[in-house]
Amino acid sequence: MAEPDQEDRSTGPVLRIVGRVRSPLTELSDAPRQGDEGAPEAWIDFDPGVTDAARDLERGEPLVVLTWLDRGDREVLAVHPRDDANRPLTGVFSTRSPDRPNPVGLHSVIVREVEPTRIRVSGLEAIDGTPVIDIKPELTDPGRR
Amino acid sequence: MAEPDQEDRSTGPVLRIVGRVRSPLTELSDAPRQGDEGAPEAWIDFDPGVTDAARDLERGEPLVVLTWLDRGDREVLAVHPRDDANRPLTGVFSTRSPDRPNPVGLHSVIVREVEPTRIRVSGLEAIDGTPVIDIKPELTDPGRR
Repeated sequence: MAEPDQEDRSTGPVLRIVGRVRSPLTELSDAPRQGDEGAPEAWIDFDPGVTDAARDLERGEPLVVLTWLDRGDREVLAVHPRDDANRPLTGVFSTRSPDRPNPVGLHSVIVREVEPTRIRVSGLEAIDGTPVIDIKPELTDPGRR
Repeated sequence: MAEPDQEDRSTGPVLRIVGRVRSPLTELSDAPRQGDEGAPEAWIDFDPGVTDAARDLERGEPLVVLTWLDRGDREVLAVHPRDDANRPLTGVFSTRSPDRPNPVGLHSVIVREVEPTRIRVSGLEAIDGTPVIDIKPELTDPGRR
């Protein structure tokens, strides 16, 4: 029998890229760790096949954007948080490290502008070209998240 | 050249299943729409290959659990929210529908018990057997989410 991790990798669900981040951030070293640490505004360009899914997004709306952090190292299970060697090695499920088995990024953003095939958002700390895999409304009502 | 959506589907990133939900909820019709609408406590059983990633999870901690809602219809781009035909057809990126191009579920839970290969959580509205793809700490500091 195959090693479990080999087996999962060959048979797991395949993600569909539904859009791409277009941002002035082009280098990982420029990207803030979290969106409120100085991310510039960015566009999300939608794949032509999914524009209907985006048709009701509205200016001012808080959204959760899910990205695929394709430069993440999927073999890493523990890291020093925020790359600080003084912080103890920590299981990645207790961190927001992009190095993890499935490097999905969660980004809380606000919609600033809506066009038929793209939206402009603030608070998105991903670099230019990052694949987008899903967008959801933020559940802002306390207790409803 | 292949149609973009075909192309993406054959070449997109492959998810690794890192765990499974073990819950008394076995039918979709029993599952509440959101975790605070009456989800029972559930276990997350980790894949043996990733237990190191989970080693620092702690009782009482708020987490975001990412699941793969494998019964979702990935061809659906618009739905009537909460299956209410009186609500207008809405692009899925403006809803939390499990029917969407990438049916990733986001669940805010609290850790109730930690064992080496599994955790018990409250607030997880997914049915028994649902694949888990990632776990992250909730960023509770306002402005840090």
